[in-house]
Parts: sequence; structure tokens; C-alpha cells
Amino acid sequence: MPREITSFSNSTVKLIRSLRDKKARRSSGLFLAEGLRILTEAREEGCLPELVAFAPAGAQHPLAKALIDEVEAAGGDAIETTPDILSKMSGKDNPQALLGAFRQPDTSLAALDRAASDLWFVGEKLRDPGNIGTILRTGDAVGAGGLILIDDCADPFAVETVRASMGALFTQKLAQASWDEFLPWLRGGIGQLVGTSLQTDHDYRDAPYEAPVFLLVGNESQGLPEAYEAECDLLVKIPMAGKADSLNAAIAAAVTAFEIRRHWRNR
Amino acid sequence: MPREITSFSNSTVKLIRSLRDKKARRSSGLFLAEGLRILTEAREEGCLPELVAFAPAGAQHPLAKALIDEVEAAGGDAIETTPDILSKMSGKDNPQALLGAFRQPDTSLAALDRAASDLWFVGEKLRDPGNIGTILRTGDAVGAGGLILIDDCADPFAVETVRASMGALFTQKLAQASWDEFLPWLRGGIGQLVGTSLQTDHDYRDAPYEAPVFLLVGNESQGLPEAYEAECDLLVKIPMAGKADSLNAAIAAAVTAFEIRRHWRNR
Repeated sequence: MPREITSFSNSTVKLIRSLRDKKARRSSGLFLAEGLRILTEAREEGCLPELVAFAPAGAQHPLAKALIDEVEAAGGDAIETTPDILSKMSGKDNPQALLGAFRQPDTSLAALDRAASDLWFVGEKLRDPGNIGTILRTGDAVGAGGLILIDDCADPFAVETVRASMGALFTQKLAQASWDEFLPWLRGGIGQLVGTSLQTDHDYRDAPYEAPVFLLVGNESQGLPEAYEAECDLLVKIPMAGKADSLNAAIAAAVTAFEIRRHWRNR
Repeated sequence: MPREITSFSNSTVKLIRSLRDKKARRSSGLFLAEGLRILTEAREEGCLPELVAFAPAGAQHPLAKALIDEVEAAGGDAIETTPDILSKMSGKDNPQALLGAFRQPDTSLAALDRAASDLWFVGEKLRDPGNIGTILRTGDAVGAGGLILIDDCADPFAVETVRASMGALFTQKLAQASWDEFLPWLRGGIGQLVGTSLQTDHDYRDAPYEAPVFLLVGNESQGLPEAYEAECDLLVKIPMAGKADSLNAAIAAAVTAFEIRRHWRNR
């Protein structure tokens, strides 16, 4: 049976609420995902939250009921509470009907199986949690394996990332590493490191992509450092028709990834 | 000579600050753009702010000086103030060195010259100002003419939109209309209305695009209404490899637009 919480000062309420904060996510090893749709997608991927919270109305949907039962059967915590307390937990005026607190997965490179896909995203110093979530969502759509975050990126377990990923956080693999860890790992197996750059004449539509591609996306305002570009096996340029000399990082990643997929269409 | 403002309660400070608010933007007909880079891009497009505000350090750059001179020569207002007041105006702790208040352009369909480009974006009920700015930025890169906002979209003159557009707000044309205004306007000239949809077998990579294309992008969570899809001359589908059944609206727009540009590459 779900336990009921009716007090704002309950320690579980405080824990969930704290997960909007990076420090609390790191110390607890948990992160927050909101909404029946995303929680159901997680469940289909075999990811159950350690804790699920809901207001009575939120437990009416058959999928919500099934999820709550499964969380309890797996020894997790199911919490029925008021809409106001749910709102406090989520930090939103109109919270989703369900909240789940999930254990953060292992994001070491050692846990990544590069053979699982022919296309991987690699993000360098991505500072915008929304961009990280959008790249994960794009990765799911384009059939990528996941996203490797290099150096000082925003926290991929931030609420904004989870939301923008629309569930792809549970279908895409995530890894976190420094450049100095990533490069030897990459060179320890097959893989073509592809960067988008203005410093090349290689049109992204004509480039010789070779699976598995590791598509390197640079920081939102600075792009890729020169030393990182120099390590790429292939640099490609998206021609710019207008005044601007760059695209949003998630857009550049998507346009290039879908072009790579196009190249391989008839393999 | 720039006039100096040293009081937080100055009416101009209050006016600029108010431009973060949609109502104030509407009543004043102004909007805010921040930063030397974006203001310089605007100037190169022939758009001068009616008012430019800066702290002394912000006026050191030759491009900033030139801009300030031009604003004054054009009868505009140049305001030198303190970093603290600039911070209050922009609502940010670390404001850009320059702020400009611009007159909103005419966004009626009548002011749009469809012959000016072979590719236009049309956004339906886009609710995220960042998405609108990102689509404008993509439009500049892909050589689109601009963006037509249909029905109840977020305000394209919001600070978040201007920022995400990275200056493309000044290079791309903007129009705002209801669907019932847009459709007769569209059909009053040549133009292929293209929608992205799951309700079609037409792969976006094989579709018969015919210039000028009006690429219709649906609301972030609902996609396009069926009645709007039914009006499209061509529906195309971006195949989804993973679990998700959709892309972020700005990503879908970009992937399709770059594919259209690819089709026309050898024209």
C-alpha cells in the first residue's frame, strides 16, 4: 500500500524537492523525472523509480496504477500526497500527476558498449541543460547509442534535461568523462571522431562518414577548441547561407546526425 | 552627447526594465536586444535602436562607439549609466555591455514579400520563446526568408527569443497572423505548404519539394491539428529510429529545412 504524506515538512518531501539542486542529486545519487508519459517510457526500458509520488487523481490511469504496483513490488516507495505537496516537491504550480525519483545510472566510459550503435554524440562543455536533453531526444529519434559528455558540461540529471529529453534519458546511454579520459578510450577501439567546424572545406553532405561515428558537438558559445578539432578524423562544415556563422549546438548536432543517417540509408 | 542616468528610479530605466514584460512591449511597441554582437548585426541590417544604454566600459569598443554615434545622429537616445543600473534594466546579474531598445517591425502578412526567398518557416502555436529564436537562427543559416507565426504563439519580441535568435531576429522577416488570415494569403500566390507529420508515408528525404516552400511546424506538445495537416500540399515524415515518436519542434524544422536545401542544391 502506498503510504500517505500530508505534511510539507516531511523528510521525503524535502528530499524530493532537493533534487532540483545539483549538490543534492550528487549526494543522494538520485534524479527526478515527471509525468506519466516519461515514467512509462522509463518502465518500458526497465527503469523503475526508487520512489514514486502522486496525488490521488494521478493514480487513476491504468498505467499509473501498474507503475505504482511495480515500484512497490520491487521494494520501492510509493507515496500518496496532496496536489499542494506534489507542487512543492516539483517546484511547479501545475505539477505532473506523477513524480519519480530514479537512481542515477553508471556514467563511466567503461560501462559504454560502443558496439551497441553506429552513431554516438559527444558533447564538449555543453552548458545548457535543455540542449543536452534535446540532443538525447534527437539521439533516440536518429538511432544513436547515446551521449558522452566531455569536460565541464551541465548536469545531465537536471530537471530541465530530463524534461527536454522527453524520456530519451532512459533510452540513450550517458557517459561523463574528461577529454583526457575520452581520447584514449576512443582510440582503444574503432570509431571515427567527426567534428563540425568552420575550419574545413568538407561539406557535411559529401563527407566520408565511417561507422561507428562519434559526432563531437562543441560548447554553445565557443564551439570546439582547436586542439580538439585537431584530434578529429573528419571535420565537416554545414554551409551557412545567411549572416550568422553558427547554429544552435543541438540543431547542428541534429542536422549532421540525420545527414549521416541519410548517407548510410542504403547500406 | 550621451545623457547620464544615475538614478534607479529614472523613468527611462523603468521603461527599459518593463520591456521584459509582454504588455509593456505591446503598449510601447519596443523590444530589448542585448550585447554588442547582436546590436552590431542589427546595425548591419539597417536596424538602429531608438535607445542604447551602456556602462562606461561598454562604450570602449570601436563598434560600440560607432553604434552610439549613429543612434544619436539618427535622433535616438544614448544613455550612459552605471553597471548596477544596467543590471537592473536587463534583469541580469551580469548584463551585456550594451542594451538597445528597438521599435518592433510591422509583422502583418501584407508586409511580407514571398518572392524574397524560396523557403519560409510557419510556426503554429509555438509556446517556447527559445524555440522561436532558434528557428529564426536556423532560418538565417539555411537561407530562409523568415518565420510566420500562426495563432497563439509566444511573443517573438521576448528577451529569450531575441537572445536565442543570436541576431537573426534582424535578418529574418517576422509575420503574425491567425490561420484564417494566413491560408487565403498563402493561396493568393504560389507556395507549397509542407507539414511534418506521422500520418504519411512520404519520407522527408524523397519528397517533391517545390519552391517556394512554406514549412509548417506544429505546437511543441500537440503537433499540427488535423485540419491544418489536411490543408498541406505535402506531408513528410522524418523516420524515427527509437522509442520516441517526435522531435523537438525546432529540431524537426531544421532537419527538414536542411533536407529541402539539399534537394535544391543542384538547381
